[in-house]
Amino acid sequence: MVTASPQPIFVLVEPQMGENIGAAARAMWNFGLSSMRIVSPRDGWPNAAAVAMASGAGRLLEDARIFNSTAEAVADCQIILATTARSREMTKRVLTPEAAMTEARAYARQDTRVAVLFGPERAGLSNADVTLADAIISVPVNPEFPSLNLAQCALLCAYEWQRLDTGNVEADLPERALSEDVGRLLTHLIGELDTTGFFFPAPKRESMVANIENMLRRAPLTDADVRTLRGVVRALTEGPKRQK
Amino acid sequence: MVTASPQPIFVLVEPQMGENIGAAARAMWNFGLSSMRIVSPRDGWPNAAAVAMASGAGRLLEDARIFNSTAEAVADCQIILATTARSREMTKRVLTPEAAMTEARAYARQDTRVAVLFGPERAGLSNADVTLADAIISVPVNPEFPSLNLAQCALLCAYEWQRLDTGNVEADLPERALSEDVGRLLTHLIGELDTTGFFFPAPKRESMVANIENMLRRAPLTDADVRTLRGVVRALTEGPKRQK
Repeated sequence: MVTASPQPIFVLVEPQMGENIGAAARAMWNFGLSSMRIVSPRDGWPNAAAVAMASGAGRLLEDARIFNSTAEAVADCQIILATTARSREMTKRVLTPEAAMTEARAYARQDTRVAVLFGPERAGLSNADVTLADAIISVPVNPEFPSLNLAQCALLCAYEWQRLDTGNVEADLPERALSEDVGRLLTHLIGELDTTGFFFPAPKRESMVANIENMLRRAPLTDADVRTLRGVVRALTEGPKRQK
Repeated sequence: MVTASPQPIFVLVEPQMGENIGAAARAMWNFGLSSMRIVSPRDGWPNAAAVAMASGAGRLLEDARIFNSTAEAVADCQIILATTARSREMTKRVLTPEAAMTEARAYARQDTRVAVLFGPERAGLSNADVTLADAIISVPVNPEFPSLNLAQCALLCAYEWQRLDTGNVEADLPERALSEDVGRLLTHLIGELDTTGFFFPAPKRESMVANIENMLRRAPLTDADVRTLRGVVRALTEGPKRQK
């Protein structure tokens, strides 16, 4: 029986440094992923260095399940995606993190369990492990410098998982002033400028006024901005205050 | 004159650990970004720990330019984006890395120079630095665990820059003024307002100045806009011209 699992499981295969296991846990939890499995960690388990690095993501390590082989670790999963840096002589689809997490999201929606494999720091996944996979995830890095480490690769996959959460991030836009209030500011400013003889020569007045209006209309002004600007115009016009 | 710059410049503001500078260089170069600037690195420059960590991305450090202030570091840039974890009480647009790099790509296509600011490891960017920015980049992390470090944040921004390399969509964006020219306008305006006694009472001066700076930095000002506004300030200050 397959239990519904709305999140991909990140499987670290034979990780070497505890620090990297902890950093991968942090990377996952930064984007809300919490299900980690580990195959034959080199330095045994639990691992103090991993815990120290994980800090606030320590719960992922406590809950991590440990396996003796990759095949066992993914036995109850349905879709297996293998991260690799090198291209392999295998006839498997090669997906970007974006494409892979798009598929993972689609599978998750139908309660299909997805595992993402990450290889050991130096060698990467063995061909045998990649063979277990449905498809390969390859981050399109600079070919002159393809040096992503384990935690960075996990970070990018987790980031894409989160980014593709269709309920896209609510835009956080400032509340804008009413058009008519910007209009009053313009009337005030243009009036004062007329008094100073700013619009010179006269035939250019129309285009100069239009420029100023365009500039202020294009600026994303709030109510407070409009009040400030009215105060600025008044202050500059009136000049230094009389000291009594 | 603005020289064509097809890539965003990553500006590390007061980075503390050399290792993090090196890791940021690696993250950039993984995705083909090579232009780094550094403001007041805590441990001086050059930094052996940074070089050791950067390994194959060492050239970025050799080419990095060092500045004494954020304003100087972005003086010749036109669009400034500030990465922050915390939300700020500022009326600036908050962009995901995806949205920010989409805009950066559009600006790059028209040779507009974009800087991305990254703050010190512990505190993040100061409000004064964020004030310099057109918009904020905030990675939508797990609110229970928002723990991205400097290099991870740089990695995600660089990744998005690379991912969005579609060569699509011609943008028609106005040519933007240099940051330093907007700075001169602000100095002029604030100076005149000081003369008038606008900033009253005195304890409120700092926040009032910040409000004005935020408003003008947020407005998408062109060179012509900046010239116009300087003229406006001058005209309002000098008052009606003598008729001879």
